[in-house]
Amino acid sequence: MKRYDIAIIGSGPAGLSAAINSKIRNKDIIVFGYKDFSSKLVKAPKINNYLGFHDISGIELKEKFEDHINAMNVELTYERVNNIYAMGDYFSIMVNETMYEAKAVIITTGIEYTKPLKGEEEFLGRGVGYCATCDAPLYRDKVVTVIGYNKEAEEEANYVSELASKLYYVPMYKDHYDLRENIEVVNEKPVDIVGDDRVQKLIMTSREIETQGVFVLKDSISPAQLVPGLLMEDGHIKVDRTMKTNIEGCFAAGDCIGKPYQYIKAAGEGLIAALSAVSYLDSKK
Amino acid sequence: MKRYDIAIIGSGPAGLSAAINSKIRNKDIIVFGYKDFSSKLVKAPKINNYLGFHDISGIELKEKFEDHINAMNVELTYERVNNIYAMGDYFSIMVNETMYEAKAVIITTGIEYTKPLKGEEEFLGRGVGYCATCDAPLYRDKVVTVIGYNKEAEEEANYVSELASKLYYVPMYKDHYDLRENIEVVNEKPVDIVGDDRVQKLIMTSREIETQGVFVLKDSISPAQLVPGLLMEDGHIKVDRTMKTNIEGCFAAGDCIGKPYQYIKAAGEGLIAALSAVSYLDSKK
Ligand SMILES: Cc1cc2nc3c(=O)[nH]c(=O)nc-3n(C[C@H](O)[C@H](O)[C@H](O)COP(=O)(O)OP(=O)(O)OC[C@H]3O[C@@H](n4cnc5c(N)ncnc54)[C@H](O)[C@@H]3O)c2cc1C
Ligand SMILES: Cc1cc2nc3c(=O)[nH]c(=O)nc-3n(C[C@H](O)[C@H](O)[C@H](O)COP(=O)(O)OP(=O)(O)OC[C@H]3O[C@@H](n4cnc5c(N)ncnc54)[C@H](O)[C@@H]3O)c2cc1C
Repeated sequence: MKRYDIAIIGSGPAGLSAAINSKIRNKDIIVFGYKDFSSKLVKAPKINNYLGFHDISGIELKEKFEDHINAMNVELTYERVNNIYAMGDYFSIMVNETMYEAKAVIITTGIEYTKPLKGEEEFLGRGVGYCATCDAPLYRDKVVTVIGYNKEAEEEANYVSELASKLYYVPMYKDHYDLRENIEVVNEKPVDIVGDDRVQKLIMTSREIETQGVFVLKDSISPAQLVPGLLMEDGHIKVDRTMKTNIEGCFAAGDCIGKPYQYIKAAGEGLIAALSAVSYLDSKK
Repeated sequence: MKRYDIAIIGSGPAGLSAAINSKIRNKDIIVFGYKDFSSKLVKAPKINNYLGFHDISGIELKEKFEDHINAMNVELTYERVNNIYAMGDYFSIMVNETMYEAKAVIITTGIEYTKPLKGEEEFLGRGVGYCATCDAPLYRDKVVTVIGYNKEAEEEANYVSELASKLYYVPMYKDHYDLRENIEVVNEKPVDIVGDDRVQKLIMTSREIETQGVFVLKDSISPAQLVPGLLMEDGHIKVDRTMKTNIEGCFAAGDCIGKPYQYIKAAGEGLIAALSAVSYLDSKK
């Protein structure tokens, strides 16, 4: 299997800055992300605080970033990483259908602003999950509810619906939904996840659903879940000034390592993480 | 005397990013710097690693920064800060002819790449100095040598030559020199500063000068000299992740706080320092 030098997880400003700086150092990289790079980029109405660009919209800034990475032949892999395992001198990166390998990893997955639902943390691992495709086999012939915060969740819902006896899809956004016919869309606000030992019900504003599984599919999952063993501090990945985490060869940058949540702070840290990953790789030669 | 909210010392990417972000938060700021912002900016032939700008020259990037700060009404004060004193709940900022006051200070003075001359550190304070205008009174009717690394040094040399009995100017750059007639320009490479208890001679490649004072005027002076009491670590200003130094109300960002020496890292840190200074000010209200 091909082993990349550096895998970058996330395509916000932190990930893209890490990507161009790794590329400048001639590293063989793979960058996981989205066509739109980051919803937090394209949704910004006006940006004034990224030095060099005044009064620019998020979409325009996204286009500047796009021109930059295209000019440097940085390609994105449009896939969502489910898990990253530290294997000693390399990392295994699990994506739904595929596995990738890299010698070093840079986590730039941003931060989830939305608060957890009532019951979400309590039943985590006991009916509540964040990766529907990973856990799907557990829900064969069961009733599953997917609470989707973005369009990507639809794909996961479609996949799980092939196994589940019944799938409810609760969209937390407005759009046209590309869902299989056997999926029931529930346009209600989830309020509480309840149960005894395991999840039994999802309570919504004016309706309850009996369900054995609830998948909450947000823009990003918690880094500690993404990378088992990763040390957190106050809800963020713990790093030192070189963006090194507690796991050798694993670096992090951007919103996921702490406030302030801002583009140029993320981009600056992405650069530092890349240079640190490069010297880590060079030290292993 | 007018007391600014925030004084920013230095107009490289760290200082400018601190400036726009302080301004966005409605702070009353003063920014000390140069027309060209930073020689490390305008001298860069090609920059590829500042996310959003590909294949841009330092001069072009400087123009982008200029458009940005102009649009936000950030004005630079073209003066060199000699000393900053922590006065308790405000700072006194000493410039040749003037004194300024600010409630918080952000140091973004970059780093001096050039190695010290032989003897420079040994005779520091005993004939060697970094601020000619500050120490000039000590050299009335004495022979003084100014080793100038940039055009700004010429002004200081002119000023000191009014008091000194003789002034030698050793330029470390090529340009047209705007110096008073009584100044002798010496186009030689300085090799060693020697003396007994105090400086006696400057030895150069093919000539020696008897001199009681040697001023080495580089792009930046050491931060610990700029701000007495400032804690350093491995040659850089010691800061925490919020860019706070050991002195309350004093923040720092950019090359002066550590490697990697890069534009977007400096700009990202400038933003953090600004937001930290803003919350410091808000906490004092
Ligand atoms: C509406 C809005 C306006 C804003 N305006 C400003 C502003 O004006 N100025 C400013 O400085 N900041 C602003 N921000 C904040 C700014 O958006 C963030 O600080 C910045 O985007 C952080 O960059 P990042 O690279 O760390 O993470 P993000 O931009 O959040 O990018 C993370 C990326 O990683 C992806 N990802 C996460 N998990 C995975 C996975 N498992 N596999 C693959 N990909 C994954 C995410 O989907 C996302 O694309 C704004 C935010 C919002 C929401
Ligand atoms: C030739 C060259 C090419 C480079 N190319 C790149 C590149 O391609 N990419 C990259 O990322 N980095 C590059 N760098 C590095 C980059 O220039 C620095 O990392 C960056 O400029 C640091 O920004 P800063 O704001 O911390 O400090 P600086 O840019 O050094 O700015 C500090 C400013 O403060 C001023 N100052 C200092 N003391 C005082 C005082 N007492 N009073 C008032 N003002 C003061 C200085 O004169 C200067 O204007 C290059 C550097 C050089 C020299």
